[in-house]
Amino acid sequence: MSAVGRRPGNADTRGEIVEAAKRVFASKGYDGASLRGVAREAGVDPALVHHYFDGKASLFVAAMALPFDPRQVKEHAAGTEHSGARTIEGFLTMWDRAEGTGSSFASCLSAMAASSNVADAMREFINDRVWSVLRRNEGETEALRRRRTAMVSSQLMGLAFARYILRVPPMSTASPKQIGRWVGPTLDRYSKEPLES
Amino acid sequence: MSAVGRRPGNADTRGEIVEAAKRVFASKGYDGASLRGVAREAGVDPALVHHYFDGKASLFVAAMALPFDPRQVKEHAAGTEHSGARTIEGFLTMWDRAEGTGSSFASCLSAMAASSNVADAMREFINDRVWSVLRRNEGETEALRRRRTAMVSSQLMGLAFARYILRVPPMSTASPKQIGRWVGPTLDRYSKEPLES
Repeated sequence: MSAVGRRPGNADTRGEIVEAAKRVFASKGYDGASLRGVAREAGVDPALVHHYFDGKASLFVAAMALPFDPRQVKEHAAGTEHSGARTIEGFLTMWDRAEGTGSSFASCLSAMAASSNVADAMREFINDRVWSVLRRNEGETEALRRRRTAMVSSQLMGLAFARYILRVPPMSTASPKQIGRWVGPTLDRYSKEPLES
Repeated sequence: MSAVGRRPGNADTRGEIVEAAKRVFASKGYDGASLRGVAREAGVDPALVHHYFDGKASLFVAAMALPFDPRQVKEHAAGTEHSGARTIEGFLTMWDRAEGTGSSFASCLSAMAASSNVADAMREFINDRVWSVLRRNEGETEALRRRRTAMVSSQLMGLAFARYILRVPPMSTASPKQIGRWVGPTLDRYSKEPLES
C-alpha cells in the first residue's frame, strides 16, 4: 500500500487523545484520571485510546513528553541480585538518551516548576511506578512501604538532579553502570533492609 | 541618633553590590568571582563589600536569594556522632523556613532551570560548601573525596526535591529530625564509609 493509501487522520487522532490527556491529568491528577475519562474528553471511543496506548502510564508518558516508561526500568531490574544498581543504570541510560530533547530532565523539571498541577500529577505517577517496582517485603506495614517508596524516589531524583542540572562531576561524567555500582547499595537499603524508625 | 540621622544611601549601596554580584557570578561563575571583582563592577571600594558581607559565600547567598548559608549546616553538624542525621535536620529546617518566600527551593530551582549560568554558579557553590563540610578521611585521594561530595549533594538535593517539589509523603510530612534519622545513614556512608569502586 502506498503512503497515500494510509487512512488519513490517524496521527491527528492520537494527537487529540494526547491533548485531551494533558487536560485530564492536569485537572484530575494521575490517580484520578482514567482512560475512559480521556476518551470522553477527546470525544472518541475508549477502544481507540486502548488502540494507541496500552495503559494509563503509557498515556501519561506521552502527555508529559517523558523520555521513558518506568516499567522498562522494572523489567531491567527484575530478577537480578544487584537490583538497586540495575535500576539506577536503566534509569540513567534512558534519561541520558533524552538529553538535548524536549523530554530532557531539565524540561520536565521546568514543566513541574511552572505548574503545581503538573507537579501533583508527576508525583502520583512517580509514586505509583516506584511503588510497583518495589517488592513487597513480608510482614511490612503499608506506611513503611510508602516510606521506602519516597526514599527511593528521593535518591533517584537527586541523582538526575546532580547529573543533568547541577552537573557535578563525577556524577555528570561517570557511566550509568558505574553510578549504579556507587549508589545501588543505597537503593537496596531503602527497598529491603531494616530502616530506622 | 534618629532615623533621619542615618547616613543615606546605605541600603542602596548594599543593593548595588548585590546587583553587581549577580552579574559577576553569572559571567564568571562562583569559583571565578572575587569580592574585589564585585567591588570593581559595583564601582565601590573593596572594603565596603567586606563591610556588608563576610565572604564570597555570603555574597552568593544574597545574590541568589538563597535561604541559608550552608556554613550554618556545618556548625550544626560539627562534633556530633550522627553527623549525617544532623546535617539533614539542619538543611531541611532552613529550607522549611524559606517555604512560601522568594527564596524557596522551588524558586531557586526555577532560576537554575531558566539559566545555565545560574546553574553553573550554583553547582560550584554547592560543591564548594559540601566539600568544606566533609571531613577529610586519612589517605584518601582527591578523586574519591570529590565523589563523596557529589554523592552527598545528590541525596540532599533529592530530599529537597521529594519534600518541596514532588511532595511525596512521608518525605513531605515528617519532621526534619525524623527524616534525618531515616536518611542520615546514607550521608554517613557517602562521607566516610568504604565505597564501591
